[in-house]
Amino acid sequence: MYKLTNDTMPRTRLPVAMVGGGTGSFFASYHRAAMRLSGRWDLVAGAFSSDMARSVASGSALGVAPDRVYRDADALAEGEAGRPDGARTVAVVTPNALHFEQCKVSLERGLNVICDKPLVNELEEAWTLHELAKRKGVFFGVTFTYPGYPMVREARSRIARGDLGRIKFAYAEYLQEWVAEDPRNLGAKGGSWRSDPNVAGPTGTMADVGTHAQSVLEFLLGTPIEAVSARLSTSTGRAIDDRAILMLRFSEGTEGLIWADQALPGHRNGLRVKVAGETATLEWRQEAPETLWIGTLGGADQILHRGQKDMAPEAMSYVTFPAGVPEGYLEALGILYADFADAVETPDQPGPFEVPDIVYGLRGVALCEAALTSNGKGGAWTPVGIGNRNGTA
Amino acid sequence: MYKLTNDTMPRTRLPVAMVGGGTGSFFASYHRAAMRLSGRWDLVAGAFSSDMARSVASGSALGVAPDRVYRDADALAEGEAGRPDGARTVAVVTPNALHFEQCKVSLERGLNVICDKPLVNELEEAWTLHELAKRKGVFFGVTFTYPGYPMVREARSRIARGDLGRIKFAYAEYLQEWVAEDPRNLGAKGGSWRSDPNVAGPTGTMADVGTHAQSVLEFLLGTPIEAVSARLSTSTGRAIDDRAILMLRFSEGTEGLIWADQALPGHRNGLRVKVAGETATLEWRQEAPETLWIGTLGGADQILHRGQKDMAPEAMSYVTFPAGVPEGYLEALGILYADFADAVETPDQPGPFEVPDIVYGLRGVALCEAALTSNGKGGAWTPVGIGNRNGTA
Amino acid sequence: MYKLTNDTMPRTRLPVAMVGGGTGSFFASYHRAAMRLSGRWDLVAGAFSSDMARSVASGSALGVAPDRVYRDADALAEGEAGRPDGARTVAVVTPNALHFEQCKVSLERGLNVICDKPLVNELEEAWTLHELAKRKGVFFGVTFTYPGYPMVREARSRIARGDLGRIKFAYAEYLQEWVAEDPRNLGAKGGSWRSDPNVAGPTGTMADVGTHAQSVLEFLLGTPIEAVSARLSTSTGRAIDDRAILMLRFSEGTEGLIWADQALPGHRNGLRVKVAGETATLEWRQEAPETLWIGTLGGADQILHRGQKDMAPEAMSYVTFPAGVPEGYLEALGILYADFADAVETPDQPGPFEVPDIVYGLRGVALCEAALTSNGKGGAWTPVGIGNRNGTA
Amino acid sequence: MYKLTNDTMPRTRLPVAMVGGGTGSFFASYHRAAMRLSGRWDLVAGAFSSDMARSVASGSALGVAPDRVYRDADALAEGEAGRPDGARTVAVVTPNALHFEQCKVSLERGLNVICDKPLVNELEEAWTLHELAKRKGVFFGVTFTYPGYPMVREARSRIARGDLGRIKFAYAEYLQEWVAEDPRNLGAKGGSWRSDPNVAGPTGTMADVGTHAQSVLEFLLGTPIEAVSARLSTSTGRAIDDRAILMLRFSEGTEGLIWADQALPGHRNGLRVKVAGETATLEWRQEAPETLWIGTLGGADQILHRGQKDMAPEAMSYVTFPAGVPEGYLEALGILYADFADAVETPDQPGPFEVPDIVYGLRGVALCEAALTSNGKGGAWTPVGIGNRNGTA
Repeated sequence: MYKLTNDTMPRTRLPVAMVGGGTGSFFASYHRAAMRLSGRWDLVAGAFSSDMARSVASGSALGVAPDRVYRDADALAEGEAGRPDGARTVAVVTPNALHFEQCKVSLERGLNVICDKPLVNELEEAWTLHELAKRKGVFFGVTFTYPGYPMVREARSRIARGDLGRIKFAYAEYLQEWVAEDPRNLGAKGGSWRSDPNVAGPTGTMADVGTHAQSVLEFLLGTPIEAVSARLSTSTGRAIDDRAILMLRFSEGTEGLIWADQALPGHRNGLRVKVAGETATLEWRQEAPETLWIGTLGGADQILHRGQKDMAPEAMSYVTFPAGVPEGYLEALGILYADFADAVETPDQPGPFEVPDIVYGLRGVALCEAALTSNGKGGAWTPVGIGNRNGTA
Repeated sequence: MYKLTNDTMPRTRLPVAMVGGGTGSFFASYHRAAMRLSGRWDLVAGAFSSDMARSVASGSALGVAPDRVYRDADALAEGEAGRPDGARTVAVVTPNALHFEQCKVSLERGLNVICDKPLVNELEEAWTLHELAKRKGVFFGVTFTYPGYPMVREARSRIARGDLGRIKFAYAEYLQEWVAEDPRNLGAKGGSWRSDPNVAGPTGTMADVGTHAQSVLEFLLGTPIEAVSARLSTSTGRAIDDRAILMLRFSEGTEGLIWADQALPGHRNGLRVKVAGETATLEWRQEAPETLWIGTLGGADQILHRGQKDMAPEAMSYVTFPAGVPEGYLEALGILYADFADAVETPDQPGPFEVPDIVYGLRGVALCEAALTSNGKGGAWTPVGIGNRNGTA
Repeated sequence: MYKLTNDTMPRTRLPVAMVGGGTGSFFASYHRAAMRLSGRWDLVAGAFSSDMARSVASGSALGVAPDRVYRDADALAEGEAGRPDGARTVAVVTPNALHFEQCKVSLERGLNVICDKPLVNELEEAWTLHELAKRKGVFFGVTFTYPGYPMVREARSRIARGDLGRIKFAYAEYLQEWVAEDPRNLGAKGGSWRSDPNVAGPTGTMADVGTHAQSVLEFLLGTPIEAVSARLSTSTGRAIDDRAILMLRFSEGTEGLIWADQALPGHRNGLRVKVAGETATLEWRQEAPETLWIGTLGGADQILHRGQKDMAPEAMSYVTFPAGVPEGYLEALGILYADFADAVETPDQPGPFEVPDIVYGLRGVALCEAALTSNGKGGAWTPVGIGNRNGTA
Repeated sequence: MYKLTNDTMPRTRLPVAMVGGGTGSFFASYHRAAMRLSGRWDLVAGAFSSDMARSVASGSALGVAPDRVYRDADALAEGEAGRPDGARTVAVVTPNALHFEQCKVSLERGLNVICDKPLVNELEEAWTLHELAKRKGVFFGVTFTYPGYPMVREARSRIARGDLGRIKFAYAEYLQEWVAEDPRNLGAKGGSWRSDPNVAGPTGTMADVGTHAQSVLEFLLGTPIEAVSARLSTSTGRAIDDRAILMLRFSEGTEGLIWADQALPGHRNGLRVKVAGETATLEWRQEAPETLWIGTLGGADQILHRGQKDMAPEAMSYVTFPAGVPEGYLEALGILYADFADAVETPDQPGPFEVPDIVYGLRGVALCEAALTSNGKGGAWTPVGIGNRNGTA
């Protein structure tokens, strides 16, 4: 308990640099707040913007020394790798199309990387990063935030210990409305690039939130999606999909369904997952993340509350506030950053839960590719596998 | 308002006979309660059981004269058609496999028919009944109950008048748990025959509740499903499907999704529909049928309550109790029976809403057939059409 | 199970007459629908309106023979008591101020009485009726409907068997908005007389819904309110209270609170009760009557669903539909009428739950009187007791 | 928007010291996390524990220089006031009984004070602090956190601009369960001293959470409670009240009700407020703080979501995450600390909302005293006023 706020016990802080996230960016400030909340990271360097003056100004406001504000990811990696007190980790929070090069140059200098999702647009690129990280012996995290929520971890613990019986079905919906908005209203959210295939990549909703749904289901089940029958479509006329429906097959007969739509009025960040076993079903909603619903065959529903003593001990260890005092997204992202710090600091002491790493990134890219293929073949069932570098499993 | 309980205004009652529904049957008593509540029907005859003694006992308890208790549907049709005061309508509430013959003999005698859903197992049979009803000039209703709920009607009114903008997507889930139960616990619900393909027909969940989901979506949209990509499967090992996932295409680019599962622990009668337009989305849940959720692009959600003055007048006319005094399934079924009475009594004065009739029955059979075909072809998109007698559209 | 719809088992029907409830009345048609649904009553006579022509017309629509439509309660009692096949029970559904005389003449003829709540306006009158009923050996029911809900009965069973530990606190709120409406909009609901002290009596909200709250709490706890500190007030300027706040003392240290307000915008029929014991708390809401919430000390919440196998057997026996198929107010009122039929038919075989009878009516009048007294003394704690005819307990 | 995370814009940070909050304390780490999140404070000094070794260790972990860890509040105030770079604000996060002296010595040195609630136990003490702060010209904030929630501010904006019409009634409930727990389970929450009248003061629940309820109601209405009829009691046998029921009178005929109970199983931190006007009612729940429910007379309910464009601009300015990305308690407390920073830095530029300051503290103490008086007089209506130093209004 109190992993994030146990601040009177001595904890080391790891130096970290950031690529992207200058003035006007949307989500980077949340990453920084999560780092601060985790108590495990010190932001010491950055290439915050392609505009150097802006980058310097941002660095100044963030307390970064002027000589550690760099013109780009490459210069940052070179500069920090060369300092004895340099950042050993780079957080990449730029639009998707830039991830590959920025991660690559960081890895080549032997730096750990934390990259926003979706990782890259092609499995080939993802494999290049994966092999590079492996060769350099560094950690590569991907910020699939939702497995960071304590009640998602509670759900994982309960599934793993068999509370639901054998798992039969896994459902996730991820419903948003912003793509249905007039694009001119989306400035602050940086939404516009997400509709541009040259920046966002060949899929839109599938990559943007479909992979989030995937990451939660795979985290909960502890097993990857093996095949998909997909329908990608758009209802807004934008150049990439704004809706993705995926029928899924996991191993051992477990099936699943993902429904993602980003142009559904009245929905904000509507990620909802439901996992059914032989004897019970559980449900978790991102917009009401403090509870877990469990329905049992013929019996009463149970509403579990974060922070109550009936939590699994390993999930409880990630609780910040007592039950009834609401936590939110910031705590979930903070937990991810705490896990990343553990993975960097004590790589041979894995924690109780999977840390979203480059394998999560690879799987996301693989599912996007398989969904595109299936959709092109009228929904034909298509295998989903990260294979290996040479495409063989 | 007060269509069901306006009991101090003179209303005629129509004589009706029932096939099935003797002691020990599950749902027939609800049909009779709905008839009574509607104030529009008098049960005067029946073939309540294949066991004549049991049938006579049931008839006696129901206040049916002994000479109007018949040994089977054929005898009933003959006997009642031959009486000047005879029932002119037959309600068929037997297991699916019996529907065709029982409806057929009733129609042949020129009697109106009200039949439980799913109608029959083959499109060919459905067409035979449809043509017979047409030739005899009688009404053929099918008890797809859910369009009888006032708030489903409210939803239909709002969609039809354009409150949501152009409709883009329609979703329905129908989740139950009873198939996951030990079959020995299902006696009272008569569940066992529903798992037997010889009685239930070639599909299980698809026909049993998938067609309910279809009926609500088609009622709400006012337009039929045109194509389907389906996955039917079982997680319990029973001989017919207990899960059906259908990707849908309606006309004019509208897409949809149906997820039906009858072996999902913690779910009782979980029909939930969501219809999204360009500017708003609405949602209705059968287990909380008194409200309608409307989410608007970037704005507040609205929760409409049944019986409030903001209802569409045509939907309001089906309200029984004032807002806040809960109505339930019985009122919905009562409204269906009131509509059936209107359709029989004043066939040339259609009411404000579609009455679930044999076309609903035909469409249900057609979707089951198309889903089986699609599933057999690995989810290939398959057209759904009731065509005509000769199979041409 | 299926008490209301077990219609293929032989059941006798009791002849009943109605005073009030002609064309234009608000709630009487629900009483009649509930009688029909219960399968236990036949409406055979009535004095439906003080306007004889209207009464005759209503009777005709209701299938009552013309010679059994009477000009008033007295004539009805005389006429029916004199017939061998006469109604032996009279249902009084008129405005409050008329109850006393109409009940009295019925009782004097030896007829059972079912009277709407609040019973009368003075404890003295209530005692007169009580003693008359006792002397004549007849049943006197009062339609406090809410103890008729199956999940209220489930709650009673659980409290009685100690699931919550010793009861410490009982809360009820009853929030409505109709008094805040322009009175001209209230026609159909017959609301206007409820604001007129000459018809409604000396208290408004206190009597109209405060006594409902009381009836549910006392039913649940199985013990009466012993003392009250009350604040009655109006926010709308009408001549009687539209708000009542009551601090309560039950026996053995249990305390309580009732908050009733009929001029609270956005509330329809918002009766909500919460009963807390040493180890658990339960909550039930009339507008979502199908579930019971149970919160346990430090543990998960439980949501019980009506019709599930974990119900107490005696509560289960009042279930009509399977879980997930919504029941509503009509079933609750139907259960009350079924209980009344049992009480009339087999008075020496009490059922598993208290039947709201004249003692409930007496207690309601007593609480109104005590609340008026307390309010007049600045909230001074005031004993609440029905005492006996001579005012001594 | 983004008041808390606008971290690439230059912002000054104010030096702050803390009294209390060493290892093992419960809530202080949240205060520090909120300070960090606000980006407005630097913790530079502290007297974290009465045990100096422990205090030094805590200071070290918190990055506080050893020479700025003090043995007590007095030494801290003297030390910091004497440094040119000294903390100019002291945050007091100790048990209630210690507040008075610690605040007093800080004020005497001319330091701003931020003190946890309830402020002190006697109105006399509160006035001493108030006058001292005024004389020294410093700010005195009290951490009544709940007015920090953006949707509480949205509610205030809507009430102030008349969306509900004239306010008629204000309700707050604050329900918890921890006092019903075995006291041995409460260690980590530091709950034990809260049941000890020598540390917690003469009232328990009334002071601990009753004043929170008060602070939210008075913030929402913009007007103080004027009179109270109270019932304080205990159901657990502890030496101070664990339940408080208060009937309230505000100015201009507005009435209210507070129900606070800390021994109610199944309730965690259940603060719920409801404010009703002539035409609409709003409701907010602390455990689901992201939405605001508004019910309108005869119309649909509205569910407002934090971060949507229909928020009042002044409330919107306190939003951190986009709608659908959950915020929680930490953001609310962070907003309070941002407001405190504004009040210290630019005291002549008040923000759009009342900042919970020593007047909130005074009112809390006054309501506790009046409730005790009323309870002692059997619920007699008792005026509530902070009066002035000499007890005259």
